[in-house]
Amino acid sequence: MQYETIRYEVKDHILTLTLNRPDQLNAFTIVMAHELIDAFNRASEDDEVRAIVVTGAGRAFCAGMDLSGEGNVFGLDEARSPTMEDMEKRLNDPDIISGVRDTGGRVTLAIYDCKKPVIAAINGAAVGIGATMTCAMDIRLASKNTRIGFVFNKIGITPEACSTWFLPRIVGVSQALEWCYTADIIGPDEALSAGLVKSVLPADELLAGAYRIAEKIAQHCPVAIALTRQMMYRNAAAPHPIEAHKVDSLAIFYASLSSGKEGVQSFREKRAANFTDKCSVNMPPFYPWWDQSES
Amino acid sequence: MQYETIRYEVKDHILTLTLNRPDQLNAFTIVMAHELIDAFNRASEDDEVRAIVVTGAGRAFCAGMDLSGEGNVFGLDEARSPTMEDMEKRLNDPDIISGVRDTGGRVTLAIYDCKKPVIAAINGAAVGIGATMTCAMDIRLASKNTRIGFVFNKIGITPEACSTWFLPRIVGVSQALEWCYTADIIGPDEALSAGLVKSVLPADELLAGAYRIAEKIAQHCPVAIALTRQMMYRNAAAPHPIEAHKVDSLAIFYASLSSGKEGVQSFREKRAANFTDKCSVNMPPFYPWWDQSES
Amino acid sequence: MQYETIRYEVKDHILTLTLNRPDQLNAFTIVMAHELIDAFNRASEDDEVRAIVVTGAGRAFCAGMDLSGEGNVFGLDEARSPTMEDMEKRLNDPDIISGVRDTGGRVTLAIYDCKKPVIAAINGAAVGIGATMTCAMDIRLASKNTRIGFVFNKIGITPEACSTWFLPRIVGVSQALEWCYTADIIGPDEALSAGLVKSVLPADELLAGAYRIAEKIAQHCPVAIALTRQMMYRNAAAPHPIEAHKVDSLAIFYASLSSGKEGVQSFREKRAANFTDKCSVNMPPFYPWWDQSES
Repeated sequence: MQYETIRYEVKDHILTLTLNRPDQLNAFTIVMAHELIDAFNRASEDDEVRAIVVTGAGRAFCAGMDLSGEGNVFGLDEARSPTMEDMEKRLNDPDIISGVRDTGGRVTLAIYDCKKPVIAAINGAAVGIGATMTCAMDIRLASKNTRIGFVFNKIGITPEACSTWFLPRIVGVSQALEWCYTADIIGPDEALSAGLVKSVLPADELLAGAYRIAEKIAQHCPVAIALTRQMMYRNAAAPHPIEAHKVDSLAIFYASLSSGKEGVQSFREKRAANFTDKCSVNMPPFYPWWDQSES
Repeated sequence: MQYETIRYEVKDHILTLTLNRPDQLNAFTIVMAHELIDAFNRASEDDEVRAIVVTGAGRAFCAGMDLSGEGNVFGLDEARSPTMEDMEKRLNDPDIISGVRDTGGRVTLAIYDCKKPVIAAINGAAVGIGATMTCAMDIRLASKNTRIGFVFNKIGITPEACSTWFLPRIVGVSQALEWCYTADIIGPDEALSAGLVKSVLPADELLAGAYRIAEKIAQHCPVAIALTRQMMYRNAAAPHPIEAHKVDSLAIFYASLSSGKEGVQSFREKRAANFTDKCSVNMPPFYPWWDQSES
Repeated sequence: MQYETIRYEVKDHILTLTLNRPDQLNAFTIVMAHELIDAFNRASEDDEVRAIVVTGAGRAFCAGMDLSGEGNVFGLDEARSPTMEDMEKRLNDPDIISGVRDTGGRVTLAIYDCKKPVIAAINGAAVGIGATMTCAMDIRLASKNTRIGFVFNKIGITPEACSTWFLPRIVGVSQALEWCYTADIIGPDEALSAGLVKSVLPADELLAGAYRIAEKIAQHCPVAIALTRQMMYRNAAAPHPIEAHKVDSLAIFYASLSSGKEGVQSFREKRAANFTDKCSVNMPPFYPWWDQSES
C-alpha cells in the first residue's frame, strides 16, 4: 500500500511513521486515519519492525482535524451519515463503524492492539486529534517547540480518540480534566512536570532521543515486548490482580519453553541474547486472551 | 431553598459555594450534607452556572465532621439506626440510603453526577470529610494556609466519601495509602508535589486563582464541558478503550449537528464562539449513557 | 514455622521481614516464595504485628529469580510441569496453582490480601521479582544504593508478580511501560521523581525511615487500618464510586458501634486513643465484602 499522507520507513528494526502533510501542518483527514490504521496493523505483523517512532514532517506534529475543507470536518462520512437516533441504535453496524465512528478513535484502537511499542516524537504543534492520538502511544518526547492542546471544548466538541480512557492513565484525572476544560495550549515544561512527556530535548535532538529508546527496545525479545505491551494496558484495567496473575502464569510458562531459555542462557554466559522469536508466528497459543468480539 | 450552612452565590456564570459555619471552622453536619447535595443538584441544572468554586468562610475550609454535638457524630440518623446485620441486608433500602448511608459519600456522589466543573479553593484546614469531599472535585488549589488531613485511622474510622475511589485516581495508590495510614497533616508544598493540588497561591490570591480557571471554563461550550466531565470519570474506569470510543463517536456526531458547527465556524472566522446550548435542555439523547438504577 | 530463606522478627508491633540469602544477593527461590506467602498470611492474623517492613540482608534487596540452579529457574515445579495446552485448560486446578502458577504472583497476591500495611526498605539491588514484589507493597523507600530493574524483556520473559496490575497504579502506564521495554536499571533519583519511592535516604538511615512510618501506623486503630488497605486497592479498581460508597457506609456504621467511639472520645479529651480492636477477631461481619471464589 502506497500512502498519500504519511511516510512508512523502516531502518534497523525501527519504523518511523511521519505524518506528511507539512503544508497543512499535517492536519488529520479521513485518508490519514485510514492510512494510519493500515500502517499500525501492518507494523504489528511486520517482523522487521520492533519499535515505532511517530513524528510530523515540517514544523508541526499534527495541527488537528483538517478544518479547511468544504465537507464534513468531523471525520464523518456524509454519504452514510445517519440520524442521531439511527446512530445510537446502529452503533455496532459495520456501516456505522467504518463510516461514522470517530476516526481518531479507530486510529488509537489500532495503536492499542499493536504488538510494537510506539514512541511519539512531538516535534511541534499537537492539537486536537494531534494531541489525543499521542495519548495512545506508550512514550512521548517533547522538544522546545512542542505545543499541545486539548482544545475540544473551545470549539463545541468533546475529547475523542479514546483520550478520556488513555490520558488519565498517564497524568491522573484532575490534570486531564483541567487541560480539557480550559483548552489551554501546553508548553513542553508543563507537559514534562505533569508526566505527559518523558523528557524535553533540543529540537534537533528529538528524533535521536526517540531512536535511543527504540534501539534498546529492538534489542530485546519481540514476543516478550508484545506480550508486555498488551499485559500492561489490559491487566491494569482489570478489577483484581488475579487477572494479571493468570496471564503472568501462562506467559512465564510459555517463555520457559521458548525465548526464556535463550534469555537465561545468555545471562549466565554474560553475552547479548539472540532471540529468534517472531511476533508474526510465535505469539503464544493463549494470545489474544481477551474477548475480541467487540472492537 | 434557603441554606443555613452554606452560601450559594452566582456571578458571571460562576457559582461560589461557601461552607459557612466559620465559628465552627465550617464543620460538616447532616444539614450541611443535605444542603450541599441540593446545591450541586441545583447547579447541575442551572444554566446560569458554568463552573463551581467551593471554599470556606473564615480561616478554615472544613474542619471535618462536627464532633461537638451530643448525638451521633458520624452523620448517622439515630432515629433510623439499624443493627449491623440489618444495615448489611438493607443497604439499598431508601430508608437506609437517606438515613444511614455515609453522608459524605452522598455529597461526593452528587458532585460526581454534576454537569459543571468543580474547583476547590482550599483556604485553610481541610480535615476528614473536609479533605475527602475535595477529592471528588475536579481541580484543587491551595494557599500557604492549607492543611489537609486524612485523619480517619487515628480516630478509629475509615476514609469515606468515596475517597478510596477518587484519591488514588489523583495521586496514585501508594501516596493515598500513606496519607491515610499515617493520618499526617499535609502542608501545601507536599500537596503540590504529590499532585493533589494544582498550585499554591498567596492566601489573598487564592479565590482569584480559582476564578481565573472558572472564567476560562465559562467561555467554552457548556454541553461539551458537561459531556467531557462525565466521559473523563466514567470512560477512564472502563475496562477497555472501546467503551470510550462508542461514547466519543456519539458525542462527536451530536456535536457535528449542534455546537460543533458554531465552534468550527468561529475558528475559521478567528472570532470567539457564541454557544447557545444549555445543559438543562440540550444534553444529547444518549445522555446519560450509564445505568442509573444504582446511585 | 521455621524459615530458611527469610527472617521474621517482631518488635514494638512492627514485623521486620528480611530476605535472608545474603551470599546469593537474596535471590528468590521456590522455598522463599512459600516462606513469604506463609509469613504474610501469618502476619495478617498476628495481632502483635501492626505494620510490616521488608528489607534484604547484606548489600542487595533481592537480585531476582535464582538463576544459579540446575533445574527450572522460572519458579516452576518441574515434577508437575504440564504441556502448554494443559496449562491453559487447567489454570485453576489446585495442582497447577500450587505447582506452576507464577510464584512471584502468589507472593504478591498474599501481600494484596494482607491486613497489615507493608513498607519496602529497598536497601540495594531489586531486580526482576526483587523489583516487582515491591510494587504490591504500599510504600517504598530507597537509599543511595538502590537499583531497580524490570529486566524481563531483556531475558525473553514478561513482567510477573501481577506487576502489570500494581506498577501503573503507582507511576502511571507510560512510565511502567518504558521501564519494562528498556529493561534499564533505575537509580534512586529516577525512582523518586517517578513516584515509585517515597523518599531517598542515606543507606544507614533507611531502616530507621521505614520504622518511623511503621511506628505511626502502629499507633492507629488496627481494624480501621486493615479496612482502609483493602478499601483503597479494591474500591479504586471499581467501575463506579457507588461501590466505594456502600463499603464506606458499612465501615462507618461499624466504626460508630466500635473503635470510632474511643476515637472520638479521645479526640474530645485531647488524649491518645486506646484502641483494643484486633484484626484477628474484630473485623466487621461484612469483611471480606468481595467474592473469594477465585484467588
